[in-house]
Amino acid sequence: MTLLLVLDFGGTKLSAAATRLPPTSLEWLALRRVITPAGVDGAYEYATMCQMAQEIIALVGPPEAIGVSFGGPVDESRGVVRLSHHVAGWENVPLADWLKTAFGVPVLVDNDANAAALGEYRYGAGQGCTDLFYVTVSTGVGGGWVLNGQPYRGSGRMAGEIGHLVVNPGGMPCVCGKRGCVEAEACGPAIAQKMALRLVEEKGKNGQGLMVTGQWVTDFTAREVNAAAHEGHPLAQQVLTEAGRFLGQGLGMAANLLNPERIILGGGVTKCGPLWWEAVRGAARYHALPEVEVEVVAAALGDDAPLWGAVGLVSGF
Amino acid sequence: MTLLLVLDFGGTKLSAAATRLPPTSLEWLALRRVITPAGVDGAYEYATMCQMAQEIIALVGPPEAIGVSFGGPVDESRGVVRLSHHVAGWENVPLADWLKTAFGVPVLVDNDANAAALGEYRYGAGQGCTDLFYVTVSTGVGGGWVLNGQPYRGSGRMAGEIGHLVVNPGGMPCVCGKRGCVEAEACGPAIAQKMALRLVEEKGKNGQGLMVTGQWVTDFTAREVNAAAHEGHPLAQQVLTEAGRFLGQGLGMAANLLNPERIILGGGVTKCGPLWWEAVRGAARYHALPEVEVEVVAAALGDDAPLWGAVGLVSGF
Repeated sequence: MTLLLVLDFGGTKLSAAATRLPPTSLEWLALRRVITPAGVDGAYEYATMCQMAQEIIALVGPPEAIGVSFGGPVDESRGVVRLSHHVAGWENVPLADWLKTAFGVPVLVDNDANAAALGEYRYGAGQGCTDLFYVTVSTGVGGGWVLNGQPYRGSGRMAGEIGHLVVNPGGMPCVCGKRGCVEAEACGPAIAQKMALRLVEEKGKNGQGLMVTGQWVTDFTAREVNAAAHEGHPLAQQVLTEAGRFLGQGLGMAANLLNPERIILGGGVTKCGPLWWEAVRGAARYHALPEVEVEVVAAALGDDAPLWGAVGLVSGF
Repeated sequence: MTLLLVLDFGGTKLSAAATRLPPTSLEWLALRRVITPAGVDGAYEYATMCQMAQEIIALVGPPEAIGVSFGGPVDESRGVVRLSHHVAGWENVPLADWLKTAFGVPVLVDNDANAAALGEYRYGAGQGCTDLFYVTVSTGVGGGWVLNGQPYRGSGRMAGEIGHLVVNPGGMPCVCGKRGCVEAEACGPAIAQKMALRLVEEKGKNGQGLMVTGQWVTDFTAREVNAAAHEGHPLAQQVLTEAGRFLGQGLGMAANLLNPERIILGGGVTKCGPLWWEAVRGAARYHALPEVEVEVVAAALGDDAPLWGAVGLVSGF
């Protein structure tokens, strides 16, 4: 059976894994994963990844192809990384060529949103669908399409940018320069930031903290807002519901425009409880036309979705 | 050369035409077109269309295939019309089978938005593109996709419903039940309706009219609002700009989600002047991410786009 090596250059993590084709389970033959230290550059990441790849090859043998998911814009037709949004030194790096020279096998590279969409399509929550939209809700909000059973990237390889649809005109400022974008209203940091704003609005400057599982937390994240909501904190519930609704509004728009069979949500924020999921699904249903079916489900592959997408990329070899 | 017959069951018109493959020009070998009288049913439309088809066949000879564009939801895989939004009696009509029995040749049927998209892609303003979004701005606002060089219809054949993205929360009521949809803010009747509302707001009940080309018009349409704007009427300019901006907002969202190479606008409202076009393009550009190129152009085939799409449908025969 074909042995494949897959690599994921994530925003905060590097992962390398091996599998055989067809995969008999979602267990990797071997896996290496490291957190990227702050302040490193592309050369460090590349060297670290090559070392992990060599360790895996020493364990399982030489691969017949390498699939790569990269956290940033990629020209997948040439295997060239345009840049990383997280780490300097990745500008116009011919990553596929480098790896091909280093390992002597064919290499395909795609960006992480497209890879995750393909991974869920082939091996996760999108199995059996012809058309799906994968959306990651994390420190940002982005997505990738599989349409007519093929990855769809758009003419400038920019498709999937659901994070920058305005859903709340005049709302929270967004990194893109607009206000009220899905990302600005619904990503993890937005949930924490809105909670802080509401607490100050309600209680003044003494109100900048939250009681969660018996602890007083002042530097909280979306995770604590979710926990507080679960414990009945009315402001936390309101913030979480609002964030979910704005995301759902964006999903309903995507459903009207493309009518995909399934929308698959991944990323840390999807670990929120039923309050958030109900808000997301309710708003998606409200914004889609009655004739447009909207099925919003959780990703099945978790953090491994880009790696499984890298398997999908090279599964033709 | 292959002779093709193409039929367009439009909202207010029936058209039949013939061409050879490959078409040597955008002139039809023969064309028949009639306005549909009010109050007719599907049986009347079918009989009228068959008669026009027979007239064309008498002129140019028997076709090798028939392509059909239909103004309503269609199951294109079976050639079955689900219903017409304009005329009763089209519910679940196996139109491809009927025509195949009547004319003895293969028949393919698609809905008019998909057909128009395909027509512009093959023979109009989308030639040379791999991915495009065709949007008609008329009594309603709807669209059709060509993605990866293929018509894309969505899993429930509902893709392209840009008219029902909310761009102005709490704005004009829409037929879909929401408020502030692209259609409710930017279609032809919306432009006329907003103009009437603004006139009454400004001038009270005596203000329900508009001076256009030296005539006092009380029952005006988007066409007269455009003419008044062109003549310098400030309220008309404001209404037209606002409608264009809301449409452009929807187009910018579609660009972020799918990054098509080109967006092609057809329908009566696109006959508005540069003020409207600048508003549309400006808002599309503003709402798309800086990295997302947005090219918004006018349709090239006018009212014939669905007929040319019907040619595209059967051009494999």
